[in-house]
Amino acid sequence: MSVTAAPGFVASGIHAGIKRRRHDMALIATDDARPVTAVAVFTQNKFFAPPVGVSRRKLAESGGRAAAVIVNSGNANAGTGLQGYADAEAMCEATAEAIGCATGDVLVCSTGIIGNLLPMDKVLPGVSKLAQTLSAEGSEAAAKGILTTDHVPKEAVVKGSTFTLGGMAKGCGMIAPNMATMLAFLTTDADVPADELQAILRDAADRTFNTLNVDGATSTNDTVILLANGRAGRPDMAEFAGAVHKVCEDLTWQMARDAEGVTKMVTLRVTGAASDAEARTAAKSIAENNLVKCSWYGSDPYWGRLLAAAGSAGIDFDPERAAVAYGGITVSKAGAPVAHDVAAVAEHMKNERIDIEVALGLGTGAAQVIGIDLGPGYIKENSVTS
Amino acid sequence: MSVTAAPGFVASGIHAGIKRRRHDMALIATDDARPVTAVAVFTQNKFFAPPVGVSRRKLAESGGRAAAVIVNSGNANAGTGLQGYADAEAMCEATAEAIGCATGDVLVCSTGIIGNLLPMDKVLPGVSKLAQTLSAEGSEAAAKGILTTDHVPKEAVVKGSTFTLGGMAKGCGMIAPNMATMLAFLTTDADVPADELQAILRDAADRTFNTLNVDGATSTNDTVILLANGRAGRPDMAEFAGAVHKVCEDLTWQMARDAEGVTKMVTLRVTGAASDAEARTAAKSIAENNLVKCSWYGSDPYWGRLLAAAGSAGIDFDPERAAVAYGGITVSKAGAPVAHDVAAVAEHMKNERIDIEVALGLGTGAAQVIGIDLGPGYIKENSVTS
Repeated sequence: MSVTAAPGFVASGIHAGIKRRRHDMALIATDDARPVTAVAVFTQNKFFAPPVGVSRRKLAESGGRAAAVIVNSGNANAGTGLQGYADAEAMCEATAEAIGCATGDVLVCSTGIIGNLLPMDKVLPGVSKLAQTLSAEGSEAAAKGILTTDHVPKEAVVKGSTFTLGGMAKGCGMIAPNMATMLAFLTTDADVPADELQAILRDAADRTFNTLNVDGATSTNDTVILLANGRAGRPDMAEFAGAVHKVCEDLTWQMARDAEGVTKMVTLRVTGAASDAEARTAAKSIAENNLVKCSWYGSDPYWGRLLAAAGSAGIDFDPERAAVAYGGITVSKAGAPVAHDVAAVAEHMKNERIDIEVALGLGTGAAQVIGIDLGPGYIKENSVTS
Repeated sequence: MSVTAAPGFVASGIHAGIKRRRHDMALIATDDARPVTAVAVFTQNKFFAPPVGVSRRKLAESGGRAAAVIVNSGNANAGTGLQGYADAEAMCEATAEAIGCATGDVLVCSTGIIGNLLPMDKVLPGVSKLAQTLSAEGSEAAAKGILTTDHVPKEAVVKGSTFTLGGMAKGCGMIAPNMATMLAFLTTDADVPADELQAILRDAADRTFNTLNVDGATSTNDTVILLANGRAGRPDMAEFAGAVHKVCEDLTWQMARDAEGVTKMVTLRVTGAASDAEARTAAKSIAENNLVKCSWYGSDPYWGRLLAAAGSAGIDFDPERAAVAYGGITVSKAGAPVAHDVAAVAEHMKNERIDIEVALGLGTGAAQVIGIDLGPGYIKENSVTS
């Protein structure tokens, strides 16, 4: 059910013809076309796409209200200049007309290839078709409509004691340190004011999506939107924040598992840093290093590459205090190898999910990221425009 | 001839048994075992290897003098703790004894696998053998002795009007943004005081090796050493600095051409940045982006990925002013596509060397880096410890 799990939301997804065969458009809306509380987290990239510019402006003007989100995949409407803005606006206008709300209440997202104008002759008829097929059963089709190189739809639902929260996402190319787009859409019947909702979503995104898409190097189009219609009344705020975190975390792991060419997922924890910020910097530097990523692909517990990445991350680092553990088994201390159960480490490295701790031994700063290996599948998917 | 091109230097290279078959040790020395002016540029990595620590200290203590450099490949003597320091010192001592100089006059470098102790039972007999085979004809063997995953030795010589400058290098895994080691050794008969020599070497390294190994993310062992015995007297300083630059540049391109799995080399120029520093940041961000590197492998002029990388580099960036050109042909202006000769761009992308300009349109800051594509060969060489 995902984005239609909470009462009051409808959705649809179709093949409009932007891609050759697969679904390529989706619509999420309130069932009465009235605006509800809406918050979002957008890419920090200065080369953001026109739909990001348009949605950001609409939310600022409405003070956090929206009735619908129109989405297309297969074309990011990025690197498209003024025509790109006109096209994104036209998508909102067509949606507003089709479902009967104000243009200002429609948000828009695109994902796919950068640098080509949207085929509006396919997109606009697609909007009509989406509006006609909106239903509470439409979430699965919508989850398909937002995918690009993803292999499977990504959906999650949490039933709270008083509310329901559902979400769907697309990811894949956005694996650190890269830039293909991640989109996520959440809906809930909880009643939470926009400012609180924004803070909860920002915090959840930072602790989930942003630990995978490790930060700054975000796509032209990355967007997370949360709509709340308030029908279920005010929730227990701790429970609600936990639910948002849970849905985002669930979607993050689904994205990691479906990443382009992925064969290994690594929970990389940096501890003992001088500060949390330094731990984050080190974790990012390690998880983004191609030699490290290749060693994960090869199931090789090559701890020296991890420390070399940490040592050049520009943080406080002392080889004499550093230690590395794979699957809880320490393989290096004081920057040198230590005797350990080699067979047990080799066994752990064969898993699809690997746990690594880099302990810097300097302070109490800690951070965790989800790292992905670098294998031939990634190159195959990214060496030609698909 | 390379490191023995200048009168007064001898060299040798052998197979000592660290690697299975190939040469794995080299020695460069003055022909009378007397110390001469010596300067070096070392890795900035805080997880530097013991030989880096030892050589750095010796140069500081001698005020820039050395009579020999002992090198091994196949094992980086990195991540080896106190025993690593003892082994690096033992290599210097054995060399000093074998050629008849002070231990303080011997520098040491290692390159290869991180995290294993040196097999000193092979290294120490290797030192004796190297000392016995030192000759003015030994430069080719020495150039082989320093290689790791390199396919060919890298040598360069410049004959100045009054002096000779020769050099050899090993590179390969050090392609941006990675961390395998680059080593380079230069010798000359010019007479240049240590402080001037240091400034010239630092400047040349910044404008050559460091545009490839794009910076900060340097290896545990990176080292460039320049020995000058002064026999040819004081050179014309501009000519001499030009020669150092030329040898470093030549070796840099040899390293790029022989990089792990490389199929394309890209001269990436960022212009119109707010400052040179911002241009360097943007160039580094673009050249290190895996989606960009994959597009180079695929001969795909996917300019949107370049701007997306620039837009998230944390620099001043305005999509409305940005333009991208491949092989001098502008494919994007104002962050949007422009009509261009598609066939000519496709033709240029088929070359082994590609030229790209990203013009930011904001100021006069400019920078140039050498980028390398990311293809399956890189992963093959780096996914298991070789």
